[in-house]
Amino acid sequence: MFDNITIILVNTSHPGNIGSSARAMKTMGLTKLALVAPKIVDQKAIEMAAGATDILDNATNFATFAEAIADKTLVIGTSARTRALPWPMLSPRTLAELIKSHTKEQIAIVFGNERTGLTNEQLQSCHYHVMIPANPEYSSLNLAAAVQIIAYEIRVVLLGADIATEWDAALANSNDVQQFFVHLENTLTKLDFLKQSAPRKLMPRLKRLFLRAKLDVMETNILRGILNAIDGREKNA
Amino acid sequence: MFDNITIILVNTSHPGNIGSSARAMKTMGLTKLALVAPKIVDQKAIEMAAGATDILDNATNFATFAEAIADKTLVIGTSARTRALPWPMLSPRTLAELIKSHTKEQIAIVFGNERTGLTNEQLQSCHYHVMIPANPEYSSLNLAAAVQIIAYEIRVVLLGADIATEWDAALANSNDVQQFFVHLENTLTKLDFLKQSAPRKLMPRLKRLFLRAKLDVMETNILRGILNAIDGREKNA
Repeated sequence: MFDNITIILVNTSHPGNIGSSARAMKTMGLTKLALVAPKIVDQKAIEMAAGATDILDNATNFATFAEAIADKTLVIGTSARTRALPWPMLSPRTLAELIKSHTKEQIAIVFGNERTGLTNEQLQSCHYHVMIPANPEYSSLNLAAAVQIIAYEIRVVLLGADIATEWDAALANSNDVQQFFVHLENTLTKLDFLKQSAPRKLMPRLKRLFLRAKLDVMETNILRGILNAIDGREKNA
Repeated sequence: MFDNITIILVNTSHPGNIGSSARAMKTMGLTKLALVAPKIVDQKAIEMAAGATDILDNATNFATFAEAIADKTLVIGTSARTRALPWPMLSPRTLAELIKSHTKEQIAIVFGNERTGLTNEQLQSCHYHVMIPANPEYSSLNLAAAVQIIAYEIRVVLLGADIATEWDAALANSNDVQQFFVHLENTLTKLDFLKQSAPRKLMPRLKRLFLRAKLDVMETNILRGILNAIDGREKNA
């Protein structure tokens, strides 16, 4: 999955950031990592990769940026805004949409050094730049955090990966809910809590509450059971 | 901005994760952090917060989860799927949509301990759970990475923060582009590169290329200038 997408880290200073980036990639299902002349890759990288050391083990190594992108057909560089010469600019979400519509391309997403980013020359080898819409007063995302956001958007957009609520009981149908409302009104009347001479908005408010909660069949049964228990106590009183 | 949203970290083990989470929050414009009984907050937290130590300094401290959420009106707990009892479940994106439509609520987004998460009792105090759609084979997001994704979604959805390409020249209008095409065809004919007896698809291919690139006025002028230079050389030849 996603094996036409390579994350390229260029001149990374801190080995921990390489490990954290590998972890961030793997949590979102990205597997291909390339490293261009990192300052050092040591035990700290392995430590920060946690369970994603396979990504590190399979990473390809290049001496130069040009070699790393040589076989890529679509190259996207991460960038802050306002270079001397504007370049076509994507957000992480529009980048993910672009990738979705270019599944047959060999795509590289390139991250520069933590402090200095990509050079102008490197950025001018990219088809697009991508920028994360951060707080303009503090846009200092950690390298792995930037990888995490972009990998997350790729996963969500390409897989349509949304989270559905899974429920353990079917929702109650309208007939069941209306019968519960009738029962509730009868019980509250018998309890003399609901006075038909002055009903105020008691029933509408209770109906609104229970409809908003979208009762399931189990809950409807529990509530009917409670009403039956109240009814029985009233009968015996 | 976003000051009705509090990120609550419960029983965090590693102080570095508290610092990284503060940094992740600040990059997306979130400012309110609450800590419930962290194991330790030391120099490592300050170090990992980088320029976001103000978030740490202003963090509120609570002994218990219940105290931290006491004044909140909408509580969302981060969770992995499949607890014994299903709970209404959001994705980061649907959580952000919910927040957008509840701007007057005091909202808490709660993250549990790195290894054990929130307890069932804590999760059952939440209105909703939120789950990040991660790789099911490796869903081990670092705490700050989870904070980063959720804060990012909140920023993007609430601010509609997208990245627009800013360009330094206006796009060329159709008239200018068509004149360039006529000029190009003339020059290529004079060069005897384009043979009107066997034009193949040369001009349609060149038109498709330049239209796809969406020429700006400066580029159109440059290209016309190049054609003029070629024309002049041909004349003098």
